[in-house]
Amino acid sequence: MLTFSKEEFQLRVQKVKEKMEERGIEVLLITDPANMNYVSGYNAWSFYVHQMVAVFLDEEEPVWIGRFMDAIAARKTAWLKHENIVGYSDNYVQSYERHPMDYVSDVLKERGQGNKRIAVEMDNYYFTAQCYESLKKGLPNATFEDARGLVNWIKVVKSDAEIEYMKRAGQIMTKGMTDAINYLNVGVRKCDMAAEIYRTFTSGTEEFGGDYASIVPLMPTGVDAGACHLTWTDEKYKDGDIVIFELAGCYRRYHSPMSRTISLGKPSEKLEETAKITIEGLNKVLDFIKPGVTAEEAEAVWANNLKKYGLFKESRIGYSTGLNYPPDWGEHTISIRPGDKTVLQPNMTLHVIPGMYFEDFGVEISDAIRVTETGCETLGNVERKLFIKE
Amino acid sequence: MLTFSKEEFQLRVQKVKEKMEERGIEVLLITDPANMNYVSGYNAWSFYVHQMVAVFLDEEEPVWIGRFMDAIAARKTAWLKHENIVGYSDNYVQSYERHPMDYVSDVLKERGQGNKRIAVEMDNYYFTAQCYESLKKGLPNATFEDARGLVNWIKVVKSDAEIEYMKRAGQIMTKGMTDAINYLNVGVRKCDMAAEIYRTFTSGTEEFGGDYASIVPLMPTGVDAGACHLTWTDEKYKDGDIVIFELAGCYRRYHSPMSRTISLGKPSEKLEETAKITIEGLNKVLDFIKPGVTAEEAEAVWANNLKKYGLFKESRIGYSTGLNYPPDWGEHTISIRPGDKTVLQPNMTLHVIPGMYFEDFGVEISDAIRVTETGCETLGNVERKLFIKE
Repeated sequence: MLTFSKEEFQLRVQKVKEKMEERGIEVLLITDPANMNYVSGYNAWSFYVHQMVAVFLDEEEPVWIGRFMDAIAARKTAWLKHENIVGYSDNYVQSYERHPMDYVSDVLKERGQGNKRIAVEMDNYYFTAQCYESLKKGLPNATFEDARGLVNWIKVVKSDAEIEYMKRAGQIMTKGMTDAINYLNVGVRKCDMAAEIYRTFTSGTEEFGGDYASIVPLMPTGVDAGACHLTWTDEKYKDGDIVIFELAGCYRRYHSPMSRTISLGKPSEKLEETAKITIEGLNKVLDFIKPGVTAEEAEAVWANNLKKYGLFKESRIGYSTGLNYPPDWGEHTISIRPGDKTVLQPNMTLHVIPGMYFEDFGVEISDAIRVTETGCETLGNVERKLFIKE
Repeated sequence: MLTFSKEEFQLRVQKVKEKMEERGIEVLLITDPANMNYVSGYNAWSFYVHQMVAVFLDEEEPVWIGRFMDAIAARKTAWLKHENIVGYSDNYVQSYERHPMDYVSDVLKERGQGNKRIAVEMDNYYFTAQCYESLKKGLPNATFEDARGLVNWIKVVKSDAEIEYMKRAGQIMTKGMTDAINYLNVGVRKCDMAAEIYRTFTSGTEEFGGDYASIVPLMPTGVDAGACHLTWTDEKYKDGDIVIFELAGCYRRYHSPMSRTISLGKPSEKLEETAKITIEGLNKVLDFIKPGVTAEEAEAVWANNLKKYGLFKESRIGYSTGLNYPPDWGEHTISIRPGDKTVLQPNMTLHVIPGMYFEDFGVEISDAIRVTETGCETLGNVERKLFIKE
């Protein structure tokens, strides 16, 4: 079930160890499911219980530690030797008496790793405050530090094999968005629209299937279109509705997001104008992006264009995307905003999403891109315009 | 957009405050999205950034604190007065320089709440180790304690209005599982099967639409059927495959899960025998469950039946379910396992799932139930048997 070659996984582990060495980290406890997948291949919906991949500077292969029943999936999906897959018993699961990190502490001590410099992913969803407290209690001789972003910043430049997955996700995206816009109509229930989106994106193409996206279809509508993270109800679309689709094609956990805005019926002047400005700005940003420019310089292109119209957008206009699990398809590295001085490089993949949100309407027109040797290319391919269905 | 009456929300807040008072908690910071929804009604896919609902013992209404762009959705979905909806600026989002909990600390101090006894949900996915560190740093005069489960244990007995939602989720479940079993066949790609499941569950019934379930369709197959949290690939189903569907109908964030096992072609003796034992045990547990019995007593009924066959299952055979967000539809309260002395009460809702997992195959036949005044009733309605498609 390996999704990349064993060699590619080993190269990733090597890069992680180099970064650990550089920072004097002896043990890295990876709890971010995407980072776990990146170094081990492990892939299952088990992150609702505590689990990790531990990388030891003085051991060749990482160790997967999780719930015993998920060790079966680890043996099937990870490249690790089976003695490096360690399961804890079920009475640790969601218990008020014992914590899985107590077990992890024991494993680390047994392996002679209990008194090391240990780094943890302090701001990851799957490393709770209690995880940290339990580890500190269980390993009083260890020192702890924050490895936030350590693996994420390695992931940020994709291998050719990863780019191939991103492009497949893009193909699913193109097909799915096209189908969604075709299906949308006045009188369709929003839940049926969401159902159709799920169907096409999960089915994928004839050549390859789709995976679940890390975020559900976001489809705010009408006067709620400015509330960009609303999902759906069972109400019907009405004439005059503004509809936003923010979706992602997903192939083997790799995401290619896109958003488009559709007017059901004749658009208002305000909507047309906002869409025009958004597209103009997005085009300018994509024309600008190439290796060597920084994330904040790309944002400035957008902001300067907006300024012409007397407008201002507070929120970032994009972020790095790729391999992920719920609740986010962003990689928590690059944000295209003032202050982010990341220099863009070939094979970085970004979702450029200059969403314009107002109290009573909104416009989103966005694309996922790959930075190429000389500029950038979009991963999906749907016309960049305000769609109008009359 | 309120999903329950304002009075029901206020009653919930009152119950939370009573529990706070009992424990000497002055400020409760709720970061679990399901608990946030429970007390405020707030519902959006925004939990990938830090957010919370804060309950102050000396203030009447809770305060929503989150990303400024999500404040729009908060104003639309929560019952709270608008001055109690507070947004932080975008430069706090996934920043390596500042943390949203720094902002929260400032808000608390401004409201005169910075030196109080503050409780946080220590083991919730959306309260990371960094959240806790930042709060402790920002509020040096506060004392902190763990409110893990505080709201969850209030949620565990459902109101009649919530039971109505659970029953609707059960109707979606019944329809969806029936459709899934009908659609399943040799030669169907697993991704197309998943697509069909998503379609029917999201579309819901003619009367009401479905919501997204907190866990994606779990559908381990064949020799991988024992790896219970695997999702899907784009391979085709083969003759002789064992197929497990673990799914949930969802209505307005309320879940009614179910699992069934299907044999494509003639089942092996081993499979038939395991299915028979599973159903027998499940039936006995459901016959036993009524108000007044404990969770561990219900498990003992299962374990004793299994013992007759010389079998043993380590993992819990069920848990409380209801309102939730990814990554789990379990409520992190009751586990049906040895040591759990929770006394069952009317309007508790449980997913009874005695899954039998082996290295090379597995069986899952499970039902969601409501504890009634005299026993229990299932929320979905699909025959409890090993399905065979030849």
